[in-house]
Amino acid sequence: MSASTQVAITGAAGQIGYQLAFRIASGQLLGHGQSITLRLVEIAPAMQALEGVAMELEDCAFDSLEEVVATDRLEEGFRGADYVFLVGAKPRGPGMERSDLLTENARIFSRQGAVLNEHADEHAKVLVVGNPANTNALIASSNAPDMDPRNFSAMTRLDHNRACAQLAARTGHHVSTVRRMTIWGNHSATQYPDLSQATVDGKAATSLVESNWARGEFITTVQQRGASVIKARGTSSAASAANAAIEHMRDWAHGTPGGDWVSMAVPGDGSYGSPEGVFFSYPVRCEDGDWEIVRGLDLDEFSQEKIRITGEELLDERAAASDLM
Amino acid sequence: MSASTQVAITGAAGQIGYQLAFRIASGQLLGHGQSITLRLVEIAPAMQALEGVAMELEDCAFDSLEEVVATDRLEEGFRGADYVFLVGAKPRGPGMERSDLLTENARIFSRQGAVLNEHADEHAKVLVVGNPANTNALIASSNAPDMDPRNFSAMTRLDHNRACAQLAARTGHHVSTVRRMTIWGNHSATQYPDLSQATVDGKAATSLVESNWARGEFITTVQQRGASVIKARGTSSAASAANAAIEHMRDWAHGTPGGDWVSMAVPGDGSYGSPEGVFFSYPVRCEDGDWEIVRGLDLDEFSQEKIRITGEELLDERAAASDLM
Repeated sequence: MSASTQVAITGAAGQIGYQLAFRIASGQLLGHGQSITLRLVEIAPAMQALEGVAMELEDCAFDSLEEVVATDRLEEGFRGADYVFLVGAKPRGPGMERSDLLTENARIFSRQGAVLNEHADEHAKVLVVGNPANTNALIASSNAPDMDPRNFSAMTRLDHNRACAQLAARTGHHVSTVRRMTIWGNHSATQYPDLSQATVDGKAATSLVESNWARGEFITTVQQRGASVIKARGTSSAASAANAAIEHMRDWAHGTPGGDWVSMAVPGDGSYGSPEGVFFSYPVRCEDGDWEIVRGLDLDEFSQEKIRITGEELLDERAAASDLM
Repeated sequence: MSASTQVAITGAAGQIGYQLAFRIASGQLLGHGQSITLRLVEIAPAMQALEGVAMELEDCAFDSLEEVVATDRLEEGFRGADYVFLVGAKPRGPGMERSDLLTENARIFSRQGAVLNEHADEHAKVLVVGNPANTNALIASSNAPDMDPRNFSAMTRLDHNRACAQLAARTGHHVSTVRRMTIWGNHSATQYPDLSQATVDGKAATSLVESNWARGEFITTVQQRGASVIKARGTSSAASAANAAIEHMRDWAHGTPGGDWVSMAVPGDGSYGSPEGVFFSYPVRCEDGDWEIVRGLDLDEFSQEKIRITGEELLDERAAASDLM
């Protein structure tokens, strides 16, 4: 048996997958010293394109890439997986209601959860990127009864990074000086990007920007950033989404920097007025491959109301997909 | 003035550029500690897409990315550039003769050479990726009289990596055990992938594979690999090309590993029967930001003939573009 770490990616021939696979194979997830096997999963019609991706990975001659498995069989794709990126999802087509989108994806992610339960490493870390990410994570997790729900999470890191970048630009500081940003709730238009706890170069963000901006344009800019990128590029965020996925998983595995936190959607525990029984994005700290929600933050009424709204949306999504849990 | 390193990329909103920009911004060219400014260049019709790329780069919140400049003006794009990736080129359209392709690109690269001469750092390292890469490099270099021609090179690293991967697969070893592979000549169908000097896990490659394979299928597979990827993916190699471009520039800047070499197309010096006055791919070693052609290799008649053929093609290309040099 190989000692290489098994990294599975669904939707691997798609735009995000095409960025993700090469950055992971080049050592950006686990470091150059760690041998990895990429387990690339696609739906049958995309298998030829996926073969092309596998050829290109071979053509990179990566030192730490042990093997590439390209398959349309989930059982093969998830076999022994240590890290799982669930990127592939059914996109919302023209005339499709949000409820249709939810139920179509619920079917996909319930099956993926069941196959993960049977074939992945029982301690595998599973990150859901495909939308609606929070509810897809809930469905996958609830169909994997032998895996700890704490090993599932949904991605709000792209929103988190976007929020940090907007605050940095507004205050004229480099983005690396921004700390303690939070995305609360659903990775959707109801998400709450919250700078009330953030610092920029050690100073409270609230002392550097106007309250109107923090509660208005800042929030809507982050919420609508994906649409703005589509408008410019003509296609959705791929490179920045792949980057966020790598950072999410890397921080989860290796820990968040001291004094800072990141945003991850994890099983809701009722804290800060969030609902239980859904995947909710919180400020979290990671250490030794585990995460914990940051405790004891003092939130004002504005924040509490925003958390209530995004939490309600998640409860509605859960209700719409309840027959698959 | 910023102390950040200026990295320019043309064709930055294209498929290769979209891979390249994010991997460079994430620290894979110069390391995480080095602050960089990306200077992204596109033609006017692609400027909206390029704005989208710039937005996504901002949304990655990269620690070492100081600034992103997005422009369709070469003077702005190349200003103070330390590293230049000339990726954008006119692709060969339906019914277009190779000579048309050469002259159309000769116009583009002669202008780029002239603007580099005026605006880039005089010690800038310039890598030509856009095809026909060797002759484009020659034209750019000959239009930059104040820059040392040694600071220009054309990319054969993707062919080099492909050749290493094919040899590894054939011998059942990991690609990281392959050393001393060489691509000679033109980055075109006449290139000569040469394993006669190569070792696999310390053993002579020629003792591990049949001569028929080494002189037949091995060569044609590497020469035609780009077409095979297009057939599978439906679009040309982007991620593997970007990876090769980063490795080429990184090794040029930081040195090749001891005991090994890489393939780079550099100004021909007549060695090994290659022509002077064209950009020709040789085995090269890099150290302290400079390169030298590996000397004293013993080549058989088969190799000499292959080198002659690809050299003649380069002389023909030079003749076709001679009025722009």
